[in-house]
Amino acid sequence: MTGMRLLLAGFGNVGRRLVELLADPGAWPSLAALDLKVVAVTTGRHGGWADPDGLAPARILAEYEARGRFPQDLGTLAAARELDYDVLVELSPLNVAGRGEPAIGHMRAALARGRHAVSANKGPVAWAWPELQAVARANGVRFLHEAAVMDGAPVFNLARHCLPGTVVLGLDGVLNSTTNVVLGRMEQGAGLAEAVAAAQAMGIAEADPGADLDGWDAAVKLTALANVLMGAGLTPEAVRRRGIGHLVPADLAAARGRGRRVKLVCEAVRRDGRVEAVVEPRELELGHPFARLEGSDSVLRVHTDRMGRISILEEEGPGLTGTAYGVLADLFELGPAPE
Amino acid sequence: MTGMRLLLAGFGNVGRRLVELLADPGAWPSLAALDLKVVAVTTGRHGGWADPDGLAPARILAEYEARGRFPQDLGTLAAARELDYDVLVELSPLNVAGRGEPAIGHMRAALARGRHAVSANKGPVAWAWPELQAVARANGVRFLHEAAVMDGAPVFNLARHCLPGTVVLGLDGVLNSTTNVVLGRMEQGAGLAEAVAAAQAMGIAEADPGADLDGWDAAVKLTALANVLMGAGLTPEAVRRRGIGHLVPADLAAARGRGRRVKLVCEAVRRDGRVEAVVEPRELELGHPFARLEGSDSVLRVHTDRMGRISILEEEGPGLTGTAYGVLADLFELGPAPE
Repeated sequence: MTGMRLLLAGFGNVGRRLVELLADPGAWPSLAALDLKVVAVTTGRHGGWADPDGLAPARILAEYEARGRFPQDLGTLAAARELDYDVLVELSPLNVAGRGEPAIGHMRAALARGRHAVSANKGPVAWAWPELQAVARANGVRFLHEAAVMDGAPVFNLARHCLPGTVVLGLDGVLNSTTNVVLGRMEQGAGLAEAVAAAQAMGIAEADPGADLDGWDAAVKLTALANVLMGAGLTPEAVRRRGIGHLVPADLAAARGRGRRVKLVCEAVRRDGRVEAVVEPRELELGHPFARLEGSDSVLRVHTDRMGRISILEEEGPGLTGTAYGVLADLFELGPAPE
Repeated sequence: MTGMRLLLAGFGNVGRRLVELLADPGAWPSLAALDLKVVAVTTGRHGGWADPDGLAPARILAEYEARGRFPQDLGTLAAARELDYDVLVELSPLNVAGRGEPAIGHMRAALARGRHAVSANKGPVAWAWPELQAVARANGVRFLHEAAVMDGAPVFNLARHCLPGTVVLGLDGVLNSTTNVVLGRMEQGAGLAEAVAAAQAMGIAEADPGADLDGWDAAVKLTALANVLMGAGLTPEAVRRRGIGHLVPADLAAARGRGRRVKLVCEAVRRDGRVEAVVEPRELELGHPFARLEGSDSVLRVHTDRMGRISILEEEGPGLTGTAYGVLADLFELGPAPE
C-alpha cells in the first residue's frame, strides 16, 4: 500500500501527540516510507474536519489550537461509514461504563467496509475482540491494537510474531502506571490522596483516577491480553478485581518489614479449560521480577509451553509518545514490510 | 513452502534435542503444519547420513545411539554444496579459535545456492553477518539465527518485527548463564573452582568453561546483537573484554556490603558514529533491573530512540529445548505465516 489515508477518531492527548509527530517528518525519516495522509479527524464533541486531498498536520494543530474545535459538524461514526480512507485510527480514551462503546462501533463500521482499524483504545480489544477479529478476516483487512496495553511496547506483536508454535499457558504483569506510582509514594509515607496528587502532578494519573485505583484499567488491559494471547473469551466484568483504595501507608510499611513490596498484579491462568483472570494487590518478595518496578515501569510476563517464561519490561514508560508510537507500529505493520 | 527439507549440520546436544522434538510430532501439533523432513544429517567427525526421501527422526536417534556415528562418510560442506534441501540448519557449537569457521563456510555454501540458512551457532552472526546477509539477499533466501543468543527467546525477532521505525541507540544485558551461576555460588562463599563445578553439575557450564569465564562467549553474543540490531560492523575481537576469573568471594561479599551485586554485563553504545562494545563484571545497585537475575536467567535491554528502554527477560532458561525451539522459530518464520 502506498499513500495510507488515515481517519483519526479522537483528538485528546494521544491524538494530538500523534499529529505532532506527523507534523515533523524530518525528525523521523522512516515515517516517510509510510506516506501517511490524514484525510479526516473527528471528535466526540469538538467537531470534525475532512479533506480527501489530505489535511496538513500543522494545519490540524493550528486549527484546534486557535478555535478549540474543528470546523465541520462531522462525527466519527458517520465519517467511518461514509468517507474514503484506508485506516481508521481510534484515539478515544477508554469508556468503562460504555463497555468499549462507542469505539467498538467505529471499528465495526470501518472493518465491515473493508478498511483496516487500529485502536489505541483498549475497550474494543477487551469487550469485542473475537467479533472484530472475525469481521476483519471476513473483509480481508486487519484489526490492530499495539498501543492499547503498555503504550507502544510490543506485547501483542511479540506474541503474534515472536513465539510461533508455542501455546501461552498464562500471563501476569504490572500494567497500570498510576497505581505503581501511588504505591511508591505510599511506601514513603504519603496517604492515598497525597500520593494520587503526586501522580497527577507527574502527568501520570488522570484528573479522575478512579478507574486506576479500583483496578478497572488493569482489568481491561488484562482482558485484552488474555483474549488475544490466550483466546480467553473474557470480558472485563469476569475479572476478579480488587483495587488499592483500601490500603494505607502502614500496610506497605508492614510488607516492607516482611521483606516485600505491594504491587497491583494482573494474572490470567488456564484452569480446567477456562481462563481465570484476577487483578489484586499482592505482596511480592524483593527477588520477584515485578518487585523492583518503579514509577511508570510496566511489565508483562508470558508463560509458554515451549519457551518457559518470557517477560517484556518497559522502563520509564514513554507516555504519550510511546502510545503514539504504538499506533505507528501498527501502521508500519500494515504498510511496507520492514527489513 | 510445503514440505521443508532440512540438512542438519551437527549432532551434539542441540542437534539431538531438535531431532527428539521432531520424533514426537504428536507432542507438538503446530509443528505438523511445517511438514519438516530431514534429508540429511552431518557431523564433523562422526560421519553423515543422507536420504532424499527423508530420514525418520527416530531412526536418526537409534542409529547414532547404537553406533556412535552415522553410516556414511558425508561432511557438512560437501552436503551443503551437493545435496538437494531447502534449509541448512547449523547446529555445531561456537568455535572461537576458528572465528566462526567452519560454520560460516557452511552458511555461505547454502545461501549461494539459493537455500535458506538457519544457525544456532552464534559464530557466523558475530564474524560474518554483513557478508552472509548480503549473499542471502542476492540469492532471494534468508539467513536466520534466533537460537544464537538467549536460546529461543525472541531477541532478533523482537527487533525485526516489533520495533518498526525505531533506531536502536544501544543495548545491554546479561547474556552468559555460566558466569551468572558461578557468581551466585561465589556470593555464597564458594571459590571459583567449586562454583564452576556446581555449574557443571547443573548442566549449565561446559566441560571447558574457559570461553564463559573469560567473557568470550558473552563477547560473541554481544557482537551478534550489535551487528544485527545496530549495524555495528564489529567482530568479537573488537569488544573490550574482561572475564570473571580474577574475582574471589571476598570481592562479591564486599559488593554486597555496598548494597550491590556483581554481574557480567554486556553493553554496546553508539558514540561518534561508531559502536563501542564492552563485556565486563560490574557492580549493580540492587534496584538495577539486571541485579536480581539468578541462575540461568538472562536479559537483553534495547535502548531505542522512540520507545525508550525495552527489556526482554528469559527466566530459568529452558536450555537445550529452548535452543531447539529457537531453531524451530526460524523455520516457522520461513514457513507458512503464523496467525
